[in-house]
Amino acid sequence: MPTFRLLLEYDGTDFAGWQSQKQGERTVQGTLGAALAEIAGQAVRVTGAGRTDAGVHAEGQVAATTLDTRLDAETLARALNAKLPSDLAVLAVSPAADGFDPRREARSKLYRYAIWNGGTPSPLRLRRSHHVREPLDLAAMQSAAVALVGRQDFASFQAAGSRVGSTVRSLSRVCVAGEARGELRFELEGDGFLRHMVRNVVGTLLEIGLGRRAPDSLPALLAARDRTRAGPTAPACGLTLVRVDYGDGVGYPTRLPGGM
Amino acid sequence: MPTFRLLLEYDGTDFAGWQSQKQGERTVQGTLGAALAEIAGQAVRVTGAGRTDAGVHAEGQVAATTLDTRLDAETLARALNAKLPSDLAVLAVSPAADGFDPRREARSKLYRYAIWNGGTPSPLRLRRSHHVREPLDLAAMQSAAVALVGRQDFASFQAAGSRVGSTVRSLSRVCVAGEARGELRFELEGDGFLRHMVRNVVGTLLEIGLGRRAPDSLPALLAARDRTRAGPTAPACGLTLVRVDYGDGVGYPTRLPGGM
Repeated sequence: MPTFRLLLEYDGTDFAGWQSQKQGERTVQGTLGAALAEIAGQAVRVTGAGRTDAGVHAEGQVAATTLDTRLDAETLARALNAKLPSDLAVLAVSPAADGFDPRREARSKLYRYAIWNGGTPSPLRLRRSHHVREPLDLAAMQSAAVALVGRQDFASFQAAGSRVGSTVRSLSRVCVAGEARGELRFELEGDGFLRHMVRNVVGTLLEIGLGRRAPDSLPALLAARDRTRAGPTAPACGLTLVRVDYGDGVGYPTRLPGGM
Repeated sequence: MPTFRLLLEYDGTDFAGWQSQKQGERTVQGTLGAALAEIAGQAVRVTGAGRTDAGVHAEGQVAATTLDTRLDAETLARALNAKLPSDLAVLAVSPAADGFDPRREARSKLYRYAIWNGGTPSPLRLRRSHHVREPLDLAAMQSAAVALVGRQDFASFQAAGSRVGSTVRSLSRVCVAGEARGELRFELEGDGFLRHMVRNVVGTLLEIGLGRRAPDSLPALLAARDRTRAGPTAPACGLTLVRVDYGDGVGYPTRLPGGM
């Protein structure tokens, strides 16, 4: 049976995340699996590169499935989009090697976190950005973020109660960029991310931007390996999984970096 | 009683437009009026600069109200935002002259219409852009749009069944801009707009972009003064009222031109 790689875009607002613990929740994995099962006429297994939380969006999530079908990749993509709801779409389907594992084989992932830093709420940015009313010190956040780059133990930024073998990850890029008129974005690219890691990093950088935490405090925080010393988890709505890189140039979203 | 000018942003998706014909529909005018009435402790009249249709968004709609209150403009803005739902916000409130009429006194309005011109649907652009799957010829639309600039009779682009005294309007600017990666936008600025005029212009330009209508056909179409000869009305979701200009620099949205 052929294996396929699927490139996905979704608006996470109305999904209970990529996969759920509870029965009956609407998940991306479940919605995609149901559409694939309809096409294949049998139950289908779907795996994803990143287990995005409830409310987190994706411009370039990658999934894999092995399917008893004679459809070619392009026809499968069209058939899927005809069945998927409007908040989930397949951007591309490509043939993959047997046993392709989108999570383990990923070389890096890029996440973007969007902030609306204005004095009033912004209804048009509501679904895709986190609103911070008080002015943020961009330079302070930028200088702090440098300490996160490289191979480090990110235990302080892991969701409480998580259990993974190692909490060491490598970030190749951490960028804090100010757009015109109150729009800010954080971009984190790395070989892997712990549960809630991006949102906990952003929550901590925001405390620095608000002057509640020193810009040079991150090395000590990393060394502490203590979640209780980092900032709060920033809300899911601001986060987008932008792309997953397999070093082969296949299946990239064609529309980077995307607006807010 | 003091009169106020209100600058509004809203996501039009879940509103039945600025005002409605039917009782009980959720409108921007009604939602704003109810919040103002709560603050003033009495029924309140609200007028708007543009009667946006159901599903049309605004980054800089302008409204006026006369209110029996001692609140200053800034306090009124905060009180309103505390009461308004998340898809409607007041960006600024400023004192206005007695009898200020936001529609009649407007010198010009700027509308933006956003297109997602990609081969697959885009869930993250769904609420703010119209999806056109077939490739659009940007140069053809740009060359056609020039004919719309100036003082003209736009009867061919007016919603069927409308009754207004004159269908002559002046457009100071019509721009068709291609952004990277399939995002296109139309911008129309003028002294006034007929019902559905922007959406009918866009629907006609899209037919030109798809090669179904000649780029040089607009002068004859304008001269015909016949709605049945223009293109279809483009969907409401792509349209945003960006700003209303009163020639006084007051109450502009601070975040132009905004993302898609």
